[in-house]
Amino acid sequence: MSDTPVTVLGLGAMGTALACALLKAGFRTTVWNRTAAKAEALAGEGARHAATVAEAVEASPLVVVCLLDHDSVHDTLAPVAGALSGKAVTNLTSGKPRQARELAAWAADRGVDYLDGGIMAVPPMIATPAAFILYSGPRDVFETHRAALDAMARSEYLGEDVGLASLYDIALLSAMYGMFAGILHAHALIRSEDIKAADFAPMLGSWLNGMSGAATGVAARIDQGDYAQGVVSNLAMQEAGFHHLLETAEEQGVSPELLAPLAPLMTRRVADGHGHEDLSGLVELLRTRA
Amino acid sequence: MSDTPVTVLGLGAMGTALACALLKAGFRTTVWNRTAAKAEALAGEGARHAATVAEAVEASPLVVVCLLDHDSVHDTLAPVAGALSGKAVTNLTSGKPRQARELAAWAADRGVDYLDGGIMAVPPMIATPAAFILYSGPRDVFETHRAALDAMARSEYLGEDVGLASLYDIALLSAMYGMFAGILHAHALIRSEDIKAADFAPMLGSWLNGMSGAATGVAARIDQGDYAQGVVSNLAMQEAGFHHLLETAEEQGVSPELLAPLAPLMTRRVADGHGHEDLSGLVELLRTRA
Ligand SMILES: NC(=O)c1ccc[n+]([C@@H]2O[C@H](COP(=O)([O-])OP(=O)(O)OC[C@H]3O[C@@H](n4cnc5c(N)ncnc54)[C@H](OP(=O)(O)O)[C@@H]3O)[C@@H](O)[C@H]2O)c1
Ligand SMILES: NC(=O)c1ccc[n+]([C@@H]2O[C@H](COP(=O)([O-])OP(=O)(O)OC[C@H]3O[C@@H](n4cnc5c(N)ncnc54)[C@H](OP(=O)(O)O)[C@@H]3O)[C@@H](O)[C@H]2O)c1
Repeated sequence: MSDTPVTVLGLGAMGTALACALLKAGFRTTVWNRTAAKAEALAGEGARHAATVAEAVEASPLVVVCLLDHDSVHDTLAPVAGALSGKAVTNLTSGKPRQARELAAWAADRGVDYLDGGIMAVPPMIATPAAFILYSGPRDVFETHRAALDAMARSEYLGEDVGLASLYDIALLSAMYGMFAGILHAHALIRSEDIKAADFAPMLGSWLNGMSGAATGVAARIDQGDYAQGVVSNLAMQEAGFHHLLETAEEQGVSPELLAPLAPLMTRRVADGHGHEDLSGLVELLRTRA
Repeated sequence: MSDTPVTVLGLGAMGTALACALLKAGFRTTVWNRTAAKAEALAGEGARHAATVAEAVEASPLVVVCLLDHDSVHDTLAPVAGALSGKAVTNLTSGKPRQARELAAWAADRGVDYLDGGIMAVPPMIATPAAFILYSGPRDVFETHRAALDAMARSEYLGEDVGLASLYDIALLSAMYGMFAGILHAHALIRSEDIKAADFAPMLGSWLNGMSGAATGVAARIDQGDYAQGVVSNLAMQEAGFHHLLETAEEQGVSPELLAPLAPLMTRRVADGHGHEDLSGLVELLRTRA
């Protein structure tokens, strides 16, 4: 059994998975949940079940928080601010950069060390190699508690700016939803001809894996602000072809609504004189502030 | 040198790459292009340069066509329909399923064997393991000319329905554009905090690769018409979280326009009583015909 006790606040699907991982790794683990019944199974596996948040917080120098949202975190921690003073809070509740900064400021005012985190996994993936957790905030707090953090998932420390974990979290999820939108659209097309989705899926999966490498090429162009060098498929050609994709959707009885917003951006960028450049220049049109 | 001569009509970026691959593999290759100058380099490498389409078509039993679009293919082939009779045309020009079926009907009326194709590669990828070409149409035509087709890229034969190659082509490209939209949105978010894109790209790439496996899970649900079994992240939870993604974009000065269309679909699907189900059920909302 490890020396450092850890407290987990929140035993929903994710909090339960985190507490399980800590227990399995040998950490003395204290748990609390608003609805107490959810702690029973974990108590059976060796967790200490605290009856109150205050009692839970007293038990450990590291408090891992995994609740529904920002408001539930604030409402749960505010009454025990005194007990938290001098301890470390690692908040793995999903939120926005602004909310992470607000909680960090609240914590700093009360002498609480605050680390923000973003979990890149679903609960069954916790403590498997496929999972990782993003962290941002004071590096020394991260390093001090690293053993416990690593027991839950691979840790990715991003920097001192406490908003980074949720920014990266949301950027990764946003990209994933874009890909999912594309996958759904593709399956709707395949279905329009009564082809089995399973006959198409392996090709789709390996195609997307092959093309996701584009993320690296896009990054180099963005960092250099140069979308014109070494272009393999120019935007003007892609814009023309893209209209075929939208027309095909309509001809096959598939709504083009998930893909459609790319079209006006392509058209605008071509009209602005960037038709010879790479598609990645569209990122310039997504900025709403200078 | 192989026994089967092959003709390539169209020496744009792609047609040139295809003709090069055929030459390198030892096929007696005849080329034609509207603008004759583009044939010079290939002639230097051993291609026979035909002065007219008719002459090019006479030279080989297999005619590979790679022109700008459907109309240019029709305009190029129509005057030489007689010379094409009894030969095989493999049309690798990008198009829609409806256009492939039109050309196949036109060819059938004239005793021409017609195979449709979709190239899943950019020109520099031709004849590398990363490229593949989708084919649909008569299987015997595909098998007869397989050696030449395989010299250009890995061949994926999809079936007798001649519209399949362009349907799969367009479905794969549509999914790719969804993923690209997600990647652009993600990079716009990262940029909003002046973080180097290159610091984020590797994580983004491996995250998307990990998540593209979802394509397989989605397919099983679609084929079974069951979006409720074994749900890991239910739609109601995802819908709530998705609004955080859109809000974050706005707070960071990033236009949410590329991701936004998923939100009303999620909301509608939850309102229809599918909140406990998987996200993939959204595919049911993309059908515009019964
Ligand atoms: N599940 C995933 O796939 C996943 C993936 C990545 C990140 N996350 C994030 O992890 C966090 C937890 O997710 P989950 O899946 O565990 O959710 P969940 O199963 O719905 O659990 C929600 C938890 O929050 C508690 N809670 C809600 N409102 C509260 C309040 N006002 N005061 C005190 N406690 C409150 C609930 O307590 P009761 O039991 O008393 O209701 C429960 O412990 C969320 O921020 C989620 O976005 C989840
Ligand atoms: N490049 C890619 O990344 C890529 C990837 C997959 C599929 N494709 C598809 O491959 C096909 C060719 O693409 P590409 O990149 O080679 O395009 P390209 O470089 O623009 O070449 C277009 C070709 O079409 C010819 N052409 C245009 N209009 C014509 C007409 N009315 N009559 C006769 N010939 C005509 C051009 O002849 P001139 O030289 O006389 O203008 C030229 O040979 C397209 O359908 C494209 O969608 C391309």
